[in-house]
Amino acid sequence: MTKDELRVLLEDVRHGRLEVDAALDRLKTLPYEDLGFAKVDHHRALRKGFPEVVFCQGKTTDQVVEIVQRLCGNNRTVLATRAAREVYEAVRAVFSDAVYSELARTIVVYRGERPQPKGNVLVMSAGTADLPVAEEAVVTAEVMGNHVRRCYDVGVAGIHRLLDKLDLIQWAHVIIVVAGMEGALASVVAGLAEQPVIAVPTSVGYGANFHGLAALLTMLNSCASGIGVVNIDNGFGAAALASAITRMIVGPE
Amino acid sequence: MTKDELRVLLEDVRHGRLEVDAALDRLKTLPYEDLGFAKVDHHRALRKGFPEVVFCQGKTTDQVVEIVQRLCGNNRTVLATRAAREVYEAVRAVFSDAVYSELARTIVVYRGERPQPKGNVLVMSAGTADLPVAEEAVVTAEVMGNHVRRCYDVGVAGIHRLLDKLDLIQWAHVIIVVAGMEGALASVVAGLAEQPVIAVPTSVGYGANFHGLAALLTMLNSCASGIGVVNIDNGFGAAALASAITRMIVGPE
Amino acid sequence: MTKDELRVLLEDVRHGRLEVDAALDRLKTLPYEDLGFAKVDHHRALRKGFPEVVFCQGKTTDQVVEIVQRLCGNNRTVLATRAAREVYEAVRAVFSDAVYSELARTIVVYRGERPQPKGNVLVMSAGTADLPVAEEAVVTAEVMGNHVRRCYDVGVAGIHRLLDKLDLIQWAHVIIVVAGMEGALASVVAGLAEQPVIAVPTSVGYGANFHGLAALLTMLNSCASGIGVVNIDNGFGAAALASAITRMIVGPE
Amino acid sequence: MTKDELRVLLEDVRHGRLEVDAALDRLKTLPYEDLGFAKVDHHRALRKGFPEVVFCQGKTTDQVVEIVQRLCGNNRTVLATRAAREVYEAVRAVFSDAVYSELARTIVVYRGERPQPKGNVLVMSAGTADLPVAEEAVVTAEVMGNHVRRCYDVGVAGIHRLLDKLDLIQWAHVIIVVAGMEGALASVVAGLAEQPVIAVPTSVGYGANFHGLAALLTMLNSCASGIGVVNIDNGFGAAALASAITRMIVGPE
Amino acid sequence: MTKDELRVLLEDVRHGRLEVDAALDRLKTLPYEDLGFAKVDHHRALRKGFPEVVFCQGKTTDQVVEIVQRLCGNNRTVLATRAAREVYEAVRAVFSDAVYSELARTIVVYRGERPQPKGNVLVMSAGTADLPVAEEAVVTAEVMGNHVRRCYDVGVAGIHRLLDKLDLIQWAHVIIVVAGMEGALASVVAGLAEQPVIAVPTSVGYGANFHGLAALLTMLNSCASGIGVVNIDNGFGAAALASAITRMIVGPE
Amino acid sequence: MTKDELRVLLEDVRHGRLEVDAALDRLKTLPYEDLGFAKVDHHRALRKGFPEVVFCQGKTTDQVVEIVQRLCGNNRTVLATRAAREVYEAVRAVFSDAVYSELARTIVVYRGERPQPKGNVLVMSAGTADLPVAEEAVVTAEVMGNHVRRCYDVGVAGIHRLLDKLDLIQWAHVIIVVAGMEGALASVVAGLAEQPVIAVPTSVGYGANFHGLAALLTMLNSCASGIGVVNIDNGFGAAALASAITRMIVGPE
Amino acid sequence: MTKDELRVLLEDVRHGRLEVDAALDRLKTLPYEDLGFAKVDHHRALRKGFPEVVFCQGKTTDQVVEIVQRLCGNNRTVLATRAAREVYEAVRAVFSDAVYSELARTIVVYRGERPQPKGNVLVMSAGTADLPVAEEAVVTAEVMGNHVRRCYDVGVAGIHRLLDKLDLIQWAHVIIVVAGMEGALASVVAGLAEQPVIAVPTSVGYGANFHGLAALLTMLNSCASGIGVVNIDNGFGAAALASAITRMIVGPE
Amino acid sequence: MTKDELRVLLEDVRHGRLEVDAALDRLKTLPYEDLGFAKVDHHRALRKGFPEVVFCQGKTTDQVVEIVQRLCGNNRTVLATRAAREVYEAVRAVFSDAVYSELARTIVVYRGERPQPKGNVLVMSAGTADLPVAEEAVVTAEVMGNHVRRCYDVGVAGIHRLLDKLDLIQWAHVIIVVAGMEGALASVVAGLAEQPVIAVPTSVGYGANFHGLAALLTMLNSCASGIGVVNIDNGFGAAALASAITRMIVGPE
Repeated sequence: MTKDELRVLLEDVRHGRLEVDAALDRLKTLPYEDLGFAKVDHHRALRKGFPEVVFCQGKTTDQVVEIVQRLCGNNRTVLATRAAREVYEAVRAVFSDAVYSELARTIVVYRGERPQPKGNVLVMSAGTADLPVAEEAVVTAEVMGNHVRRCYDVGVAGIHRLLDKLDLIQWAHVIIVVAGMEGALASVVAGLAEQPVIAVPTSVGYGANFHGLAALLTMLNSCASGIGVVNIDNGFGAAALASAITRMIVGPE
Repeated sequence: MTKDELRVLLEDVRHGRLEVDAALDRLKTLPYEDLGFAKVDHHRALRKGFPEVVFCQGKTTDQVVEIVQRLCGNNRTVLATRAAREVYEAVRAVFSDAVYSELARTIVVYRGERPQPKGNVLVMSAGTADLPVAEEAVVTAEVMGNHVRRCYDVGVAGIHRLLDKLDLIQWAHVIIVVAGMEGALASVVAGLAEQPVIAVPTSVGYGANFHGLAALLTMLNSCASGIGVVNIDNGFGAAALASAITRMIVGPE
Repeated sequence: MTKDELRVLLEDVRHGRLEVDAALDRLKTLPYEDLGFAKVDHHRALRKGFPEVVFCQGKTTDQVVEIVQRLCGNNRTVLATRAAREVYEAVRAVFSDAVYSELARTIVVYRGERPQPKGNVLVMSAGTADLPVAEEAVVTAEVMGNHVRRCYDVGVAGIHRLLDKLDLIQWAHVIIVVAGMEGALASVVAGLAEQPVIAVPTSVGYGANFHGLAALLTMLNSCASGIGVVNIDNGFGAAALASAITRMIVGPE
Repeated sequence: MTKDELRVLLEDVRHGRLEVDAALDRLKTLPYEDLGFAKVDHHRALRKGFPEVVFCQGKTTDQVVEIVQRLCGNNRTVLATRAAREVYEAVRAVFSDAVYSELARTIVVYRGERPQPKGNVLVMSAGTADLPVAEEAVVTAEVMGNHVRRCYDVGVAGIHRLLDKLDLIQWAHVIIVVAGMEGALASVVAGLAEQPVIAVPTSVGYGANFHGLAALLTMLNSCASGIGVVNIDNGFGAAALASAITRMIVGPE
Repeated sequence: MTKDELRVLLEDVRHGRLEVDAALDRLKTLPYEDLGFAKVDHHRALRKGFPEVVFCQGKTTDQVVEIVQRLCGNNRTVLATRAAREVYEAVRAVFSDAVYSELARTIVVYRGERPQPKGNVLVMSAGTADLPVAEEAVVTAEVMGNHVRRCYDVGVAGIHRLLDKLDLIQWAHVIIVVAGMEGALASVVAGLAEQPVIAVPTSVGYGANFHGLAALLTMLNSCASGIGVVNIDNGFGAAALASAITRMIVGPE
Repeated sequence: MTKDELRVLLEDVRHGRLEVDAALDRLKTLPYEDLGFAKVDHHRALRKGFPEVVFCQGKTTDQVVEIVQRLCGNNRTVLATRAAREVYEAVRAVFSDAVYSELARTIVVYRGERPQPKGNVLVMSAGTADLPVAEEAVVTAEVMGNHVRRCYDVGVAGIHRLLDKLDLIQWAHVIIVVAGMEGALASVVAGLAEQPVIAVPTSVGYGANFHGLAALLTMLNSCASGIGVVNIDNGFGAAALASAITRMIVGPE
Repeated sequence: MTKDELRVLLEDVRHGRLEVDAALDRLKTLPYEDLGFAKVDHHRALRKGFPEVVFCQGKTTDQVVEIVQRLCGNNRTVLATRAAREVYEAVRAVFSDAVYSELARTIVVYRGERPQPKGNVLVMSAGTADLPVAEEAVVTAEVMGNHVRRCYDVGVAGIHRLLDKLDLIQWAHVIIVVAGMEGALASVVAGLAEQPVIAVPTSVGYGANFHGLAALLTMLNSCASGIGVVNIDNGFGAAALASAITRMIVGPE
Repeated sequence: MTKDELRVLLEDVRHGRLEVDAALDRLKTLPYEDLGFAKVDHHRALRKGFPEVVFCQGKTTDQVVEIVQRLCGNNRTVLATRAAREVYEAVRAVFSDAVYSELARTIVVYRGERPQPKGNVLVMSAGTADLPVAEEAVVTAEVMGNHVRRCYDVGVAGIHRLLDKLDLIQWAHVIIVVAGMEGALASVVAGLAEQPVIAVPTSVGYGANFHGLAALLTMLNSCASGIGVVNIDNGFGAAALASAITRMIVGPE
């Protein structure tokens, strides 16, 4: 509610066009709903198909099913991450069209109109063991309305394979680099690309990897600029940030 | 060098239009120059005024001056970060038009045509002690061709001050949040905003802050999505990432 | 009391200059037994219904049952925390009126007179996965004689939901904030409230959360004042501290 | 602004008793000022003499002086912590009645009516080197309107000295325990006392103390209940929490 | 082999009482066997019944049985630590007189003459969950020839229970303090006792305990003197050190 | 492709001995294949039998089998590390001549000509629990064409056993020291030997070992020179580095 | 002693059934003052010359001088550790016979009768940079009544130098091993010696030494038994523990 | 002393050609001198010019000078590392031909015959701030008898510059990679090279670099094989390991 709208409301009250109680009702919700706080509900309603997200880890299967049901009731697409197969089975019992990715551990229940893909998101990773995180990013970025391409056969220990993918790099608006072990891939890619690079350290590794700490520190300390880092194994978060960027680039529809 | 250009070259050799040695010379530089590796030189040359950057920490004053001289020789704007006042004095002795920010510890020597500011970058911070990092981000974002606004009087312990700045938040294409202590500001801002948020933890604090580790972990673990994190105190890096994003949004000129 | 003074006292007793009871009174304050060390027994006996506590983790089911039996023999209410369901089954076999909370993992066996609830304790948390810790705090605070209210649907990434709960905040004498992930909720609540805030980091999260370290550091570094922090996942400890405070506020009965 | 006050305002507009613009002005500030967000201004104004606080570390002397001047202009007492002597000299040049504690590194400029001390706060510490932190707590607690007593000659390595102070412990509403090295004092005191204990680890120590980490962990892991922990060396924070508690106990005036 | 023995050997060679080859054989083993390197074999042979030790963790059941068999073949008592019940079953199949402690996870197979207990070792601990470590110390100290007493019902949160045990403390030559959580017991005991105190942090605890790190740091930073610390959960190591001390005190038999 | 070869190619084009398209084809692969990037393929092809390596951890059994099949198709020996028995069973179903080491958790499928062992690699370790890592090094070093000897019965706590092995030490070109617990063996060996020492910390230990961190730090801080350290438990990496060294010593065939 | 028992005792005194002295004897052991709490005063008074200790770090020069004066007033020898030269100068101005060790940073002011040295303490260290810590141990052990020998030219990287010192090792009752860098010396010495070994990690080193953490972890994880560890750089603590041991061995005079 | 020599000695004793006392004297030194322990003295004497090394950090200038004097007295080349300029000045006062490298902080005093350079060592680094460490490696490797080449203008953020240096890489027997920040260069180089790579993390960086920890972890976790890591900033250690390798390759002269 802008200042002008507020003035109109008050004028309406003054001239008897609006009852005090009605005005009260509208003003009561003012502090947050009209000030843009209720971002999720309002803005998202404008962008049809933008998903609601459920992080399944730490929730019981029953809790997840209940939340998914509530959210789908709003005719909104729902994305559930970190979902074990048994969670999917339970969700599918309710929503038979739920889509599961074993690798990404994601469930998607599409509702409403699906958005036209617009932004170009490239998801790169080096090792086979990083794929679950990379695929979580892929599924998320797609559900959020992006064209997504995968580039999974690269790694700094065989840098020539990376150099072969320069066209893919140029295609992207945003590049997500998923890497475990020492996580050096993000630096090398950011040195080759001008686009924003989102680095996702993974917990893949052992010993002095300390469950992803090594890759995390590598990425935070990159001597290449243009890199933003998200939490270890947070493929979803990387794709959400990528989508926040592509939304700006191609406009929010 | 595209495949077609390569074919032309070979045809020229075949028909004697190009000497073997001349062809050799051109092919010798093929592996990296023509494959787009030389990103900096080529692309940057197209965008006049995009700066070269010198990170002064760990370099002697003499080394910095020498590097700045070399870079300015290419008619390129130079940005030096983490520059103590004595470094600035030495640079100014050579480039009398060098601009110094005491707070940001930056030196800028403008050369060539200055770019038209295009992207909108909002730099937010909470505490007075975070200002050096915030200002480093401001100077960098400006030199890289963005409109920059500051929003320095906010903090989660007085959240009403933040709610007053919603218009500023809506203005921005990208928001940089600079925060020390517990670093919670990034989460709150990302909860209010749809734009990409770049979080910069600072080393401001004491005790269990562990020189910025507390704020870093807070930002990496944010329950709000759309946040990319850079290294502790890395105001430059945040602005470089912001510029990589706005460059995509508004086009590279 | 020096050795000489003690001798004089005994001589006085011997010669009838001092009554046995008077001597007893003076000796009663000799260190340890009469100096209040036996706090638990003495003071607690005065406040009927104040619970004895058994921390089950690391104890065998047999050990827990034996300890509960011994404590209940004193006609005292017993609270067992971190109790798995099988521990509860074993306790119920002995005390059929034992009350179990699956979520909080607590067993309560009420004995003696139950105290009149007096202090007002508000338990806030953000995520579904934090509920076990929050509920441990709820059960503990109730057993220790407090009115308890829950406020579980708040989080800094949707700050408007928090602002809706200001009346709850004003009701409380003490506020317990249970938060995992980045743990920023404590700062925001302490910025809104004047009451003491007890912050409980939880181990909910992954990656750079490091099993609750992120939330712990956030809370310790809060820029808001009036926050005391307890151990990660220590819902019991938060409620015990809250009860120590409300006991002072409303008087120890 | 309560719902009733809002209704009155609207009625006034309706009946022409209040101009639209005037109503607009009042409503404009509604979201935060009238919802209790502006806690500091409103509530504090009721309790005369409650201090404003300036954390000097990381601020220049000029910045501190400017902030103190602004705050004192509101006729409010100002407490500056972590203030070096030169900062004090600069403040005294403006406010000749500023009071400095060399040991606590605090400056106090009293303004307005001083509050009647009400709550009883006991500050305990073990070692000479912990005194700066303990004294910061003492000064803060006094300025915030508490009776404060010191108990500095205790330590777990000579536990008999502690047992001699049981009367002091019984006097207190809240006990602040300041301890470096291994920080075990908090556990022992909380085992003896029923009151809330606020534990302040200090960075006093060396080697495997890791700048206060040892004492911090000890306090967080205490097997005694009723302990809330604040940041390392945060004497101010402990006293602020203690004051939040005593304010509840004795009423906010 | 002492210098004198060496001289005798050479004289024997010189006078033909010893063949060169025989001398060679004896000298060949000189560097380590006769220079005291072979400490275990030589010295231990003097003290009948001193045990050989097998650390079972990380070894297969077969490996443990094989090692125990080999060692017992030398008519030496064998102590196996960190032994699961199935390991014991396998050992008992070979040595039917093997003694198992479920709590301490130790197996003892007595061989040869058992030593007369001499040193007095007191093992103290606070919590039920610390008992496995404490009992490992008890069994080890007994097998190594000490009188051992337990004092398991003490803890700093109820310090009066500790003060009741002063006679036990005075009885001991060496005191082993086993403590998890915050580990403060070691400081308190060392403040009361003049004897050497060996502190064993345990991994009992949760959250910011970090698997025993908290107790470890507490013990290393103790403000009481006369404390030596061993590894987390290393009950065996504490008893071995205690035995090294009592061996000096009472003489090696 | 050397400069000379490139000249020949161009001459061939010029004189019509090579078609433009054929030249194009060869040049297309130039940037990485001919510049030595494709190290694995080219160089390894020269040394028959040099293995391809599959790191099984984090890969499904199906993925491992598929990769092994693909690699063996090139008539190359394949070494799979961190392979559970079930992975071996699956591989053996395809390659009946696959060789499994239970202890080392390695699978080897020999193809092509086996290299003549040349370099001498000594693998030393102290404890039984370190054997899996040591054996991984042994198998790897053998497959990579080295003579390997084991020296497993040494440890700094019984240094005389080490001194007995000086001849083995002198035999080696490179020494791999595998050690858990405190990892001191590397320093002692490097103090005795002049050859390069490769130190492999293992995660064997408990408590303040922190999963191999203790041994890792010990090895990195060794006061003996000539030590290179690899990741915790990385027996493969140590042998690969040893092979890189022996390849230089004895020549690459 | 219960209240009833106390009453009986007093009645017995009153009626002459118990002598005053006998009653006194029984009461003497009542907790705290007569139960040995006042350990320092009582026991130490018996052993003339046993020092009082002042830890100077974190204290001002004035504070140190004042404490030393107070302690010397009791005719007790005073040992001040971590004392800078200026502290010594100030102490010497008051006590002209104060003895300073530049290397150990210790001040000793002898008062009363000096004890006859009894226990044999060997202080070993490897590097020149460890000497301040080693000398602090030497001075402390001497002041506490031990014969002390130094063995400073040993290190595991040149193990033959250590083997030359076996006679010194055999002479000692207790061995203090001071080592920085990787700290492996403690393990090697404990492998050679049967006596208790007290290991002192020092902060000597750089990089991954982390200010002594590497040596600390090495020592805690030693595979040799019979080692107790004290805090990093805590030469005093090692000597105090050594003295607690030798006191037991040779009797407390 | 070989077994044969020992036999000769005994025969000499038997036949009276050698006195018992003389034999005793020779045997007394047997344990270490003749067993090859005295590696430094014996072997080094064979290779003229191989340096003695003094690590200056933590030593006083006087101590360094004294040690250098003693070592040079043996006609041996001395290398002093971590030497401040004032240390050099003091050394030069005694040895006027001492050579100082300001950047590497090394002093070399050549004595005896200088070795013929044999091995080829390439020292690579990325940033200007890493040069002190890189140069320490260069000086050390040269003094130890290697040909050394520098390659300082490479970094993964501009990978094309690295690809230009493939000939240098091929020239080397061993490659030392010095890198701070995220330390990714080691992985990239090891991916391109077949030679052993020695990785030296440097403490260059800030924030989440944690004084070199980031680069250290990166290097330890490298997905490229053939990398050995040394301590942070340990340029000397890298060169010593490189020399141990080249000594094997080209033979020890």
